[in-house]
Amino acid sequence: MDAIRVGMVGYKFMGKAHSNAYRAVPMFFPKVTRPVMKAICGRDPEALEQARSQFGWETAETDWKNLVARDDIDVIDINAPSDAHKEIALAAAASGKHIFCEKPLALTLADSIEMLKAAEEAGVKHMVGFNYRFAPAVQLAKKLISEGRIGDIYHFRGWFLQDWILDPQFPLVWRLQKEIAGSGSHGDLGAHVIDLARFLVGEFQEVIGMSETFVKERPMSSSMTGLSAKGDKDAPKGPVTVDDATLFLARFAGGALGSIEATRFAAGHRCTNAFEINGSKGSIKFDFERVNELQVYFTDDADDVQGFRRVLATDPSHAYMDAWWPAGHTIGYEHTFTHEVLELMNAIAEDRQASPSFVDGVECQAVLEAVDKSIAERRWVAISELR
Amino acid sequence: MDAIRVGMVGYKFMGKAHSNAYRAVPMFFPKVTRPVMKAICGRDPEALEQARSQFGWETAETDWKNLVARDDIDVIDINAPSDAHKEIALAAAASGKHIFCEKPLALTLADSIEMLKAAEEAGVKHMVGFNYRFAPAVQLAKKLISEGRIGDIYHFRGWFLQDWILDPQFPLVWRLQKEIAGSGSHGDLGAHVIDLARFLVGEFQEVIGMSETFVKERPMSSSMTGLSAKGDKDAPKGPVTVDDATLFLARFAGGALGSIEATRFAAGHRCTNAFEINGSKGSIKFDFERVNELQVYFTDDADDVQGFRRVLATDPSHAYMDAWWPAGHTIGYEHTFTHEVLELMNAIAEDRQASPSFVDGVECQAVLEAVDKSIAERRWVAISELR
Amino acid sequence: MDAIRVGMVGYKFMGKAHSNAYRAVPMFFPKVTRPVMKAICGRDPEALEQARSQFGWETAETDWKNLVARDDIDVIDINAPSDAHKEIALAAAASGKHIFCEKPLALTLADSIEMLKAAEEAGVKHMVGFNYRFAPAVQLAKKLISEGRIGDIYHFRGWFLQDWILDPQFPLVWRLQKEIAGSGSHGDLGAHVIDLARFLVGEFQEVIGMSETFVKERPMSSSMTGLSAKGDKDAPKGPVTVDDATLFLARFAGGALGSIEATRFAAGHRCTNAFEINGSKGSIKFDFERVNELQVYFTDDADDVQGFRRVLATDPSHAYMDAWWPAGHTIGYEHTFTHEVLELMNAIAEDRQASPSFVDGVECQAVLEAVDKSIAERRWVAISELR
Amino acid sequence: MDAIRVGMVGYKFMGKAHSNAYRAVPMFFPKVTRPVMKAICGRDPEALEQARSQFGWETAETDWKNLVARDDIDVIDINAPSDAHKEIALAAAASGKHIFCEKPLALTLADSIEMLKAAEEAGVKHMVGFNYRFAPAVQLAKKLISEGRIGDIYHFRGWFLQDWILDPQFPLVWRLQKEIAGSGSHGDLGAHVIDLARFLVGEFQEVIGMSETFVKERPMSSSMTGLSAKGDKDAPKGPVTVDDATLFLARFAGGALGSIEATRFAAGHRCTNAFEINGSKGSIKFDFERVNELQVYFTDDADDVQGFRRVLATDPSHAYMDAWWPAGHTIGYEHTFTHEVLELMNAIAEDRQASPSFVDGVECQAVLEAVDKSIAERRWVAISELR
Repeated sequence: MDAIRVGMVGYKFMGKAHSNAYRAVPMFFPKVTRPVMKAICGRDPEALEQARSQFGWETAETDWKNLVARDDIDVIDINAPSDAHKEIALAAAASGKHIFCEKPLALTLADSIEMLKAAEEAGVKHMVGFNYRFAPAVQLAKKLISEGRIGDIYHFRGWFLQDWILDPQFPLVWRLQKEIAGSGSHGDLGAHVIDLARFLVGEFQEVIGMSETFVKERPMSSSMTGLSAKGDKDAPKGPVTVDDATLFLARFAGGALGSIEATRFAAGHRCTNAFEINGSKGSIKFDFERVNELQVYFTDDADDVQGFRRVLATDPSHAYMDAWWPAGHTIGYEHTFTHEVLELMNAIAEDRQASPSFVDGVECQAVLEAVDKSIAERRWVAISELR
Repeated sequence: MDAIRVGMVGYKFMGKAHSNAYRAVPMFFPKVTRPVMKAICGRDPEALEQARSQFGWETAETDWKNLVARDDIDVIDINAPSDAHKEIALAAAASGKHIFCEKPLALTLADSIEMLKAAEEAGVKHMVGFNYRFAPAVQLAKKLISEGRIGDIYHFRGWFLQDWILDPQFPLVWRLQKEIAGSGSHGDLGAHVIDLARFLVGEFQEVIGMSETFVKERPMSSSMTGLSAKGDKDAPKGPVTVDDATLFLARFAGGALGSIEATRFAAGHRCTNAFEINGSKGSIKFDFERVNELQVYFTDDADDVQGFRRVLATDPSHAYMDAWWPAGHTIGYEHTFTHEVLELMNAIAEDRQASPSFVDGVECQAVLEAVDKSIAERRWVAISELR
Repeated sequence: MDAIRVGMVGYKFMGKAHSNAYRAVPMFFPKVTRPVMKAICGRDPEALEQARSQFGWETAETDWKNLVARDDIDVIDINAPSDAHKEIALAAAASGKHIFCEKPLALTLADSIEMLKAAEEAGVKHMVGFNYRFAPAVQLAKKLISEGRIGDIYHFRGWFLQDWILDPQFPLVWRLQKEIAGSGSHGDLGAHVIDLARFLVGEFQEVIGMSETFVKERPMSSSMTGLSAKGDKDAPKGPVTVDDATLFLARFAGGALGSIEATRFAAGHRCTNAFEINGSKGSIKFDFERVNELQVYFTDDADDVQGFRRVLATDPSHAYMDAWWPAGHTIGYEHTFTHEVLELMNAIAEDRQASPSFVDGVECQAVLEAVDKSIAERRWVAISELR
Repeated sequence: MDAIRVGMVGYKFMGKAHSNAYRAVPMFFPKVTRPVMKAICGRDPEALEQARSQFGWETAETDWKNLVARDDIDVIDINAPSDAHKEIALAAAASGKHIFCEKPLALTLADSIEMLKAAEEAGVKHMVGFNYRFAPAVQLAKKLISEGRIGDIYHFRGWFLQDWILDPQFPLVWRLQKEIAGSGSHGDLGAHVIDLARFLVGEFQEVIGMSETFVKERPMSSSMTGLSAKGDKDAPKGPVTVDDATLFLARFAGGALGSIEATRFAAGHRCTNAFEINGSKGSIKFDFERVNELQVYFTDDADDVQGFRRVLATDPSHAYMDAWWPAGHTIGYEHTFTHEVLELMNAIAEDRQASPSFVDGVECQAVLEAVDKSIAERRWVAISELR
């Protein structure tokens, strides 16, 4: 195999991020089996053609069913709104395509399980878009934990704080509608934190949460997408049907205590996807707004110079960084996708499962849903109750 | 009244902090009614005399009952171990002394209510030692919120992280024994965060928590006090009967969502008493390890220069700071006690109730106990259930 | 004109950075006149073909004279070692090509002036690669100063700190040889700071400097390029003929005082290209290791909330950022080149001079050389002495 | 000797800081030979009595000559305006008193040498008030360098930035008048940085500087002292006769390169007394606005976790800290004076010279004056030229 042909559904925020990754991978990781940007798919022909041309896809399809049916495509990349994930994924599996699906995998745990089963039965590779795993600083956190360098883990403290809908006049975009988005901050932001927690600390055992919708109605808008959409205060209003913020406590199977928060109402936080992990031999802190940095503390440092180290994870010793620029020459958000696509290409070429796979999508969905259940029933819910 | 005569019970960590405050207040706040350091009280005569001489108290008493009975004393300052607070406070009230009691006010909510009632019936002033309120940066936070400058509050996120007992060989000091300390990280550290939350955001409505004792047995030690005591790994071990970490979620009466964590197992954190508050018009962040700083964000800053401001709360415009040094010349931990004692002296001189009073001690205890109940019963507990 | 055809000389660090920029510009700035990656040029045929294929150039040339002679090329992009800049640029100008030249423009001021004159006489566009101007945070600094928002400027304090040759065993790569590199930290790093100072504060009036070569001999190596080359401690040694560090004081024409330092011997600094500017109404701080951030202070903020704001320059209101990702989704080093190439393409398409042009290269060279002269003669040197 | 009797001249900013230190030393360092606050001296009887009472001195003197003549005093503490230092010190030495003199030691190098000689001939102890040496974080820096833990030193980069006279309406206080203050930012702020450089890196060899007075006239004011004095814009103006900012480059005897800046025109900097030192094995950074912290980097840390450590210098392993509070419980500006007075008391009790002594005052003055000469003559000046 000397190339992997990709068909992508969706061309907005995630479509742009994925497209950039396909373009970057062969340039920066020249040993990779090259992705071929075969076809891009969307419903609005004009906008689609603009995206095709701008992002560099060979062809365009306005019906994803046609895309899935094409025999010149190896991978279906799904970054359509969340409510469309399942149907496309099932069709892709049925036609023997590998699947790369944005998170959240599906609107419900049941759907996500169905997607996983379909992919497994079809024998295709499947990957879910938890891109933050692929920041070199996060990879370093994983390495330190795996090598036992911070010891047994006592605490995971994670939060994803944004403020893009703080203004009550911000319009009712699709991300604020439950039937399309599935959930609000919980599934959009909390899902990333849950995945990082699983990646770094292990499985969740039980959870209890709380959530709130602070602004209950918002102006409807013709432009129903975008994170910087402008509202029209005179427009008729519709109900916000997702959570603005969701918090929960967790106990991990390994004994660690966790607290996780996702909110879109934290003024001053544009994209604070952050966590701290405390272990018996050290601690780790990460904040995506400083994506190149990991704060690391070791208890066995000499007594008089103990302190969190600000590690700029851009040295050749850090994951992926020898492919980019000299030490200290920073990378950004989009690189997490490039590394993710690298993993996808490598997994397919090496005929192994990608990571994170749909299994991770399902496990994340189980935690999300356990939290929802804990909120509805006002009690601790074990993840095992849902399976 | 030209002086207020103080008798103090306890001479260790808090005794030293209070003594320093009594010495500092008249020098830096010369208009204050001066405290007179009349008598210090403790059980070990030799250590007590050493403390008396070192801290500058006029006399010493080895029995707190004698201290309370003296007629040349106006205020009883209680910083004995927590299990002794109640008896001393009741006696002090009975003899008509004003009372300044370290937190936690008592081992139980019932006890703390009894103490409050006794003080109210005796018509004495009462104060509880929530010293962190008195950091100028915290006072600034209070001012900004009171003036509506960060709008309606959506989130309170607080944590008090320490690491002084991370080593399993750290000995079984009194702070790790429930019968003396009442609780562990929860009452020691969490109580401070709860008080700051009440001070800044308002009353708690309901809570749900979780806690853990990571190291269940520790070596017994002849030196049973101190935060930097050394353990003897060959000594016989005894059970740790308090929590190493307690976390909880909260809903405030005003609608804000809260999460609070107290732990002594966060490697690298010596004294991270920190919080963040997000409102509709801005945000505030504080970390005691940088006690002079408050991070402040306003949504109505010009579009291109929005960002958290690092305010060094040492300008003359900041609370208490015109009494100290020129702008930028920092203060530290002990100054919170000096400001606290200033409030105590002023309250007595002005014949008004001090703040925080035993009412605050009781309310804090109610939240602590509601969290304990929520942990025991694995369910949300309303604060009102306890009253 | 619907495309601009580029021929590029050099394929190492800068060649990779430029190639990436040509690839990225049309995707993220779709209204641009598209660059066509026509030909890449280098001396080693095998490595060249590898670079051509990896970076996506249409053809390859092993002799830059052939490249310059081609009639299907509009722009010559020169990122060969510094000693080759002049000859190539003169030839490019002679054949009517626009020129994009990496910094430092030439090894001497005289050479750089000759290059500028040649370009001007040929009537071609010319640009010099001061990429750091194009960080959105730096663009914000420029905007704030231009709009008078920090008032009259009193101080410019800049330094570019690296540590990649701190190890005495690091080999004698071309960057450490005067006849190829022209100078060491001064021309490599200091040049960037000088350009930022000129961009933000204005022209230099006089300077006085000092410099040092701390490690005077280094092992020779077969691999004479690269910032992370490995030395062989048993290899024969050769003399380091450039400066390891150069510092200078400066007075600006506008009255500001400046200090500038460039060093490759600052342990822990991978790429600290940083500056601070103090004006009568505020201050600005930048550090490239946190490329997305600008620290901004205004004297007219309310008394009680004065402090440096950490502005994450990723909002739509910040230069270039609406082309990338939502607010808070960071960019990195390579994006400065993308924005630089955007300016080059726009300048050519709009038939105007690019900025920074060879004029800026010449002015920077004049300052560099004035500093060198001030070091040699141990006295203040006015920039005007050199013209 | 069981007590050391102190007479202090001056009762403003420094008088308050010193008084607090005398009060604090015996409480926090109980083994010290106790200072006795015998007499305070100043010219305004009313203000003096207020200070005496507030600060806790036994008696007051309105003529320093009377103070020096008293036989119940062992140490004369001089914190009068700089122009009075010499005469008082000479008299104190003549009467056999130990001398503790604020910096700058004198208005000129010649005067400071005369003071040193007088003290040496009288056989008294002498100390100069470079208080910043006594921050535990600075002590840690000293320890790390002394133990070779950052290797050979290549760079010292120091600056003391303030902004208290940025407003052109700030009045012409004594600190802005050459005949009283000697110099402006240079002697006030730069002197501290010079002393820290000498303390940490060693002697200066040669220097070249530049300086500027940005605001050349200021309103005269009845209140001619204070760092937060208010100007009256309608008052007649007088000339500012000292520097607002002075910068210089330096070469140290040990081979390191230095740059030092002092300014009162750096908006947003209340008291940024900061430095960075780069050595062959590591680096150190300090900023007084975060007085409890030292940033430390070691080249021999493991490859993947290299980074500056934020050491909170409040552990028992850090200088002086076991006398204060538990780890993480911060101290502030005034504590530097307490530690300084501790050194003074110990030196007298142990019959050894204090450190920093007048020798350090003289050496600092030599550097200050060499810088002045280099500015006047626009050339490098060796420190040895002045001796």
